[in-house]
Amino acid sequence: MNRDNSGRCYFDWAATAPPDYSSVNVPFGNPSSRHREGREAREALESARSRCAAVLGVASEYIYITSGGTESNALALHAMLLRQSGGVILASSAEHPSVRENCLILERLGKRVGFIGVEQDGRVSPATLENALEKHRDARFAAIMGVNNETGAKTDLPALARILRDKRIHLHCDMVQTAGKVPADVTYADSASLSAHKLGGPRGMGLLYLRKPLNPIYAGGGQERGIRPGTENVAGAFAMADCLERRLNAETVQAEYHKASERFSRLIRGLRLIPGCRLIPEDRLDEDQRFSPYILQAAFKRIPGEVMVRALDDAGFAVSTGSACSASSQERPVLAAMGVDKRTAREGIRVSQGWSTTMEEIDRLLEALTDIISRFGFGEP
Amino acid sequence: MNRDNSGRCYFDWAATAPPDYSSVNVPFGNPSSRHREGREAREALESARSRCAAVLGVASEYIYITSGGTESNALALHAMLLRQSGGVILASSAEHPSVRENCLILERLGKRVGFIGVEQDGRVSPATLENALEKHRDARFAAIMGVNNETGAKTDLPALARILRDKRIHLHCDMVQTAGKVPADVTYADSASLSAHKLGGPRGMGLLYLRKPLNPIYAGGGQERGIRPGTENVAGAFAMADCLERRLNAETVQAEYHKASERFSRLIRGLRLIPGCRLIPEDRLDEDQRFSPYILQAAFKRIPGEVMVRALDDAGFAVSTGSACSASSQERPVLAAMGVDKRTAREGIRVSQGWSTTMEEIDRLLEALTDIISRFGFGEP
Repeated sequence: MNRDNSGRCYFDWAATAPPDYSSVNVPFGNPSSRHREGREAREALESARSRCAAVLGVASEYIYITSGGTESNALALHAMLLRQSGGVILASSAEHPSVRENCLILERLGKRVGFIGVEQDGRVSPATLENALEKHRDARFAAIMGVNNETGAKTDLPALARILRDKRIHLHCDMVQTAGKVPADVTYADSASLSAHKLGGPRGMGLLYLRKPLNPIYAGGGQERGIRPGTENVAGAFAMADCLERRLNAETVQAEYHKASERFSRLIRGLRLIPGCRLIPEDRLDEDQRFSPYILQAAFKRIPGEVMVRALDDAGFAVSTGSACSASSQERPVLAAMGVDKRTAREGIRVSQGWSTTMEEIDRLLEALTDIISRFGFGEP
Repeated sequence: MNRDNSGRCYFDWAATAPPDYSSVNVPFGNPSSRHREGREAREALESARSRCAAVLGVASEYIYITSGGTESNALALHAMLLRQSGGVILASSAEHPSVRENCLILERLGKRVGFIGVEQDGRVSPATLENALEKHRDARFAAIMGVNNETGAKTDLPALARILRDKRIHLHCDMVQTAGKVPADVTYADSASLSAHKLGGPRGMGLLYLRKPLNPIYAGGGQERGIRPGTENVAGAFAMADCLERRLNAETVQAEYHKASERFSRLIRGLRLIPGCRLIPEDRLDEDQRFSPYILQAAFKRIPGEVMVRALDDAGFAVSTGSACSASSQERPVLAAMGVDKRTAREGIRVSQGWSTTMEEIDRLLEALTDIISRFGFGEP
């Protein structure tokens, strides 16, 4: 393994962030045990939970510690299987695979599932949501992500939450690309998913914020008040709490958002000058309130996304096509939902940045792209 | 938190083991990403998988990395939901909650579930298995654990596997208390669960050995070849591989087994001399091939298990009643399945040991028990 990554520019923060935590010594006992070792571990776990809750501005009892964003989404969705009352399960058509694919599984298991369309900018609007609710009058659950992981499209949570609350529909929000990135209030949702490693925390750690009780189908030792079984990862919870405190406090989010916006504004202006480059969606502005300034999707005429990813990789830049979670798939359902034609979708790449990205790296990326375009001889109409 | 655990005797290894691994630096990329950072992480992950597979003597492709033993069990069991062919799902009546409770959930979701009785010693015998198969002629799946987590009862896997293979019934084996403890061959099972933290490895890490493909209901980014979604914990996989290599190699297992047997033989002989103490089952021998020498259940007349756990805790000893995973429950379904009367079951405590347990600790435990019995004035008929 060549581990000398000096000189590399990492632009795939939406896939994972460079680790930014240190391991701490925590009591080793099993938090479910009643002896001293167990009680000490329980204390440590609950203090980590309280710290996570405090950063999110919610009560500890609403925080469930999970193995990651994917599991948090699955916990919320699969709980629908035990729901007696029926009702349609809605999801936006631009959700992460861990929501979209699980909805299709629920459908195979006999549940009724419907999709909420997105506008051309990839966002669920009050109008597309109302349309879906009109079509599925017995909807009882809606999964709408906070920030799209492929395009950065940002949901107007307060507006959508108002509509759903009026109809007593549970709003589940995948906030994996939202938390610590864009100012957001988890309490607009009835349940929400967070992932630690996207914030520099440890792998295999996540949160489910859950205000309304669900009936999970995952059973075991009753840990996490029956919502998530399995011996609790106390050390992981501690490290996650550290990261959340560092990355999720309102001041840091605001300050980093500002810096990220400046860098992406420069990137977007630069991309516009590259022949054959097309932003997705095309009307994305330099600074655009509709989008997270951490994630951007762009297509380069006649250069398939995978080819561009490889060319940039050779030049020292890590970018991706869509979600790392579906890097091996040719399908781009999120772009399809936005009405992006198939050819352009295949030419899409995702650039995502983070707290340590520099303006200089943005400039180097733009140079590399320009160079690749001219070398490949593409780009001209 | 009082973290000075000097002088404590830890006898709850079945709940969790003291950590015995060091964090290593692994490539930070997302193994699903196609750039260099991703490929390096993928390489590291696959090398950890290979090492786990090599220790178990199986091909890498049969090893799926999970968030723990509980999740491994759930993956195997919940896959039954998507099985078209129907057929009864069998489980022994002494399974861990992560199997037993999930079977009850499958039943609520419309699956037919049956239970395999155990003998008085807590073991599924060829006869009790044949009985269950006679009763449920369309059984297609059977969950039978390797070593019981409350009593140490050891399954004769080769004998049971032969019966199930003849009938083409999938054998799922919870090997969380088996691996690294008693000599065992994972390949007798069609699928098996392991947990890292019970072997001194990191929390939130486990394995599913899976020879026959299943249709998991957990969907997402297609990680772990579609069996277990979510960004892979490469550092955790590495640490788990280290522990498995250290604890699971045949020589170490054999040598530790021998030492554990000697210590438990002394413990059992000592317990017999304590007034009112009753082994569960009563006919457990000093050295008994039917039981793992790492886990023991015993009842003390007229002293409720929780009272004894607390008294021992005050005296510096960590033991438990049953599974840590059900420490808050009054129910003792495993003991009930063995035909232990309710009063005795309520008086049961579990003593479990590990690689650093000493003969001196055994002697101190026996002294403490004798002292508690005499102080409480119980034990006499």
